[in-house]
Amino acid sequence: MSSEEASHTENAEEKKLSKKELAKLERQRKRQEAAAAASAISAVKIDEDDPLAANYGEIPLNDLQSKEISGKKWTKVEHLNSELKDQVVLVRGRAQAIRAVGKKMAFVVVRKRGFTVQCVLTVAPDLVSPQMVKFATSLSRESIVDIEGVISVPGQAITGASQQVEIQVRKLYCVNKAAPTLPIMIEDAARSEVEIEKALQAGEQLVRVNQDTRLNFRVLDIRTPANQGIFRIQYHVEKIFRQFLESEGFFGIHTPKLIAGSSEGGSAVFRLDYKGTPACLAQSPQLHKQMSICGDFNRVFEIGPVFRAEDSFTHRHLCEFTGLDVEMEIEEHYSEVMDIVDRLFVTIFDSLNETCSKELSAINKQYPFDKLKYLRKTLRLTFEEGVQMLKEAGVEIDPLGDLNTETERKLGQLVLEKYGTEFYILHRYPLAVRPFYTMPCHDSPNYSNSFDVFIRGEEIISGAQRVHVPEFLVERAQSCGIDVKTISTYIDAFRYGAPPHGGFGVGLERVVMLFCALNNIRKTSLFPRDPQRIAP
Amino acid sequence: MSSEEASHTENAEEKKLSKKELAKLERQRKRQEAAAAASAISAVKIDEDDPLAANYGEIPLNDLQSKEISGKKWTKVEHLNSELKDQVVLVRGRAQAIRAVGKKMAFVVVRKRGFTVQCVLTVAPDLVSPQMVKFATSLSRESIVDIEGVISVPGQAITGASQQVEIQVRKLYCVNKAAPTLPIMIEDAARSEVEIEKALQAGEQLVRVNQDTRLNFRVLDIRTPANQGIFRIQYHVEKIFRQFLESEGFFGIHTPKLIAGSSEGGSAVFRLDYKGTPACLAQSPQLHKQMSICGDFNRVFEIGPVFRAEDSFTHRHLCEFTGLDVEMEIEEHYSEVMDIVDRLFVTIFDSLNETCSKELSAINKQYPFDKLKYLRKTLRLTFEEGVQMLKEAGVEIDPLGDLNTETERKLGQLVLEKYGTEFYILHRYPLAVRPFYTMPCHDSPNYSNSFDVFIRGEEIISGAQRVHVPEFLVERAQSCGIDVKTISTYIDAFRYGAPPHGGFGVGLERVVMLFCALNNIRKTSLFPRDPQRIAP
Repeated sequence: MSSEEASHTENAEEKKLSKKELAKLERQRKRQEAAAAASAISAVKIDEDDPLAANYGEIPLNDLQSKEISGKKWTKVEHLNSELKDQVVLVRGRAQAIRAVGKKMAFVVVRKRGFTVQCVLTVAPDLVSPQMVKFATSLSRESIVDIEGVISVPGQAITGASQQVEIQVRKLYCVNKAAPTLPIMIEDAARSEVEIEKALQAGEQLVRVNQDTRLNFRVLDIRTPANQGIFRIQYHVEKIFRQFLESEGFFGIHTPKLIAGSSEGGSAVFRLDYKGTPACLAQSPQLHKQMSICGDFNRVFEIGPVFRAEDSFTHRHLCEFTGLDVEMEIEEHYSEVMDIVDRLFVTIFDSLNETCSKELSAINKQYPFDKLKYLRKTLRLTFEEGVQMLKEAGVEIDPLGDLNTETERKLGQLVLEKYGTEFYILHRYPLAVRPFYTMPCHDSPNYSNSFDVFIRGEEIISGAQRVHVPEFLVERAQSCGIDVKTISTYIDAFRYGAPPHGGFGVGLERVVMLFCALNNIRKTSLFPRDPQRIAP
Repeated sequence: MSSEEASHTENAEEKKLSKKELAKLERQRKRQEAAAAASAISAVKIDEDDPLAANYGEIPLNDLQSKEISGKKWTKVEHLNSELKDQVVLVRGRAQAIRAVGKKMAFVVVRKRGFTVQCVLTVAPDLVSPQMVKFATSLSRESIVDIEGVISVPGQAITGASQQVEIQVRKLYCVNKAAPTLPIMIEDAARSEVEIEKALQAGEQLVRVNQDTRLNFRVLDIRTPANQGIFRIQYHVEKIFRQFLESEGFFGIHTPKLIAGSSEGGSAVFRLDYKGTPACLAQSPQLHKQMSICGDFNRVFEIGPVFRAEDSFTHRHLCEFTGLDVEMEIEEHYSEVMDIVDRLFVTIFDSLNETCSKELSAINKQYPFDKLKYLRKTLRLTFEEGVQMLKEAGVEIDPLGDLNTETERKLGQLVLEKYGTEFYILHRYPLAVRPFYTMPCHDSPNYSNSFDVFIRGEEIISGAQRVHVPEFLVERAQSCGIDVKTISTYIDAFRYGAPPHGGFGVGLERVVMLFCALNNIRKTSLFPRDPQRIAP
């Protein structure tokens, strides 16, 4: 059984329909057939007084149950342009906005994948009846419609739609109705703060949709042009991540998310019962990606969910997010890992700027942001240099402690001022603030062969050389107060000959959030999970 | 905090090293430095009686803690060929096999990523000392070694290694030792049943490593050429899946694996506590991928883990596997979805055959299989036609019931005989055996707009047109005995205007298993999870 089928095996036994149910379905089908037959010409509701009645109406469900392959061609809204002038096109999309002008004219803005076109109904003999205009204006917003009409090119720019042509409507069918009242309107959800403020100054109070309402009705919220852009950008980041790494000899793996015991332990873990065994959800693919290196996989990456039960109520923490993880053999130095990070992210940023301008400008329109500043060769500072820069700016921190959110942000500012970049690597972190499997520096037990990477003053990547010698790994785990018995399968993996290696982990949602300078990670997670939200 | 760092926050507080620990690390460092200094030339253990002592030995850990970037270049084993004759190369890999020939000669087969090269040590003045040969023969198998030497091309074919050149060793260092005794030997794990049988007939009993032992020591098991091939093949399937779908206007999404309540319910679900709320792991991305279509995403796919708590102890079920899921708007007919399946899989199979011949032959060597037979245009049969074929072959089944594993296999045989293909689509399944959200056929309430896809007589894909009208969805859920309240967020997603749509789900491990005719899905899962296994 594959994915979708097996998920319902529990219902499979119940699914055999009773005779009563079959009879009911049969009655329903007959009703639909009768309705279709009554329409005589096309299967739409008929106004018997209107000779043009076949040109509009609701398509009955039966016609949408894969009844026929007509050979009709639908044109995508985003492909509508003046080259199609005077041609007849058929489009499917949503009735985003509907406006009547008297009883003889109506405008319907049709949206598909964030692109919009203005459709015009004008009463004319043998073409458009007043009843058809009435039908159009009675449509509920966000209903799915099929519109057939002739492309025209108006003399002036169209401000209410993305496409600079209009459709002179000849046929209009409703494919599926939306509820007459929607919890949020797309135009409200798509509005920028700037617009709201500007209107307020002009004495007009526009609707502001707050973050929580958006998430409650995410299916509506993600229809906005900015959100359509965000999730395509997210995919693009992933895509370039994969392409770049593949060109460097990496390949993708899938490690288990169900882990015996309590994984690396602590309170940040989701626990569950696995067939009578205590288990938990992987907080990262760390252990298994390292094991795959011990298994001669050489250079690997993984893109997959990562689970954190932390009670972090911040703009940048989620309980479930998409981890981009990398692990690789190193020949001599952890700088080989930083080299990959450096070129990988410059490649991603370049590609976003070059190929995603439509998406970026859709995001920018609602959430204005400045283009990310980054260097061709990524700046690398040691932790000690960072501490020194902070000190010179009057910020004293523990030289062997960690940075906090505030000092990270401050250092980001200082780096931007001094080096003109919002993307940089900070390395040689104090050993004491890194996980037990981090390799200490060769020349000091206080520091480690590790690094963090920052975008706009916020951390997005952690990486390091790992301890590859099992005896030393045991020693380090014990030093960190970890019960070695609980990680014995992990440590055993190194007993059969492990090459020197290192790697890093990135949060996909954070990359997108920070590249676009968005204020909340919930904006870049499709259906976010935080300590207070597990729906929809 | 990104992936790997945050997973250890629980330890972060404990990680500050005590003075005692710091002193210990410092002592260790000093010991290492002293040892390094003692070696005078290179940081290896020295035999003071041997003037060539600097040319071999164990590299001390300190030298492997990113001490320097020497500029040395390592050549990959797979790149060693006769064009490099007489050149000096440096390779890193594992000492797979070590053989002494008297005291003056030794062979070390070095393996990297499944490729092997024979390295020869011959005692010669100023080049190789007897002590060096002794050091080589004392290496434990699977240890990581650095070997420097001159490429030579022997007159006859080399049978014991993949590369047809030898390295005349000049320097040999051990980077990291493997334990002297390994739980399984790679050559045993790499042996085919054919070899074992043949040896048995010749009176020799060779070691057979059973499936469970392999999985217990997966880090060793995955080093075999066949396994190196399997997981690269798996990545290739994913890659072509993505590339093809992207070229058809799809993009990738990530839906949550943590779901409120009990998802689609039943016993096959892993339950957990989510911050005090009952929750479960998603059994498929079904609901959320459909919601993304309601959110105007148009055409999406997802590659991610899928969780099933089923007690299935078969060769083809796992409790966690990688789902390849697709969902798309359809214009008129569910055949649009089947068209995608058809072309997608023909593209994947073609690409595997064309570009993965090395990997396929590595798999074939250990697990011989016949090349998959498939047509340029995938065969489509209706369920009724399938039932009829079975009937004609003397197998009577309930025409409105489901196929079982046995009848699926039988039908696969019949199809192969009649149509010459091991890959086909069976569609118009009885409605009663499909999930509630499956769209019934327009012309019969007994059948549905759904399909399964088979490789070598086993099901790998399930797909269908979905019910996109909320009122009808409620009716269908109720008919299937589902409490509508438990799926209200799902149904609500359709109230704001949903386009007709359909999709399908595939299990990645199954595709690889069946393409290569492997006998167990545990062979195509990196760290498999089944009802009895949650480790390593």
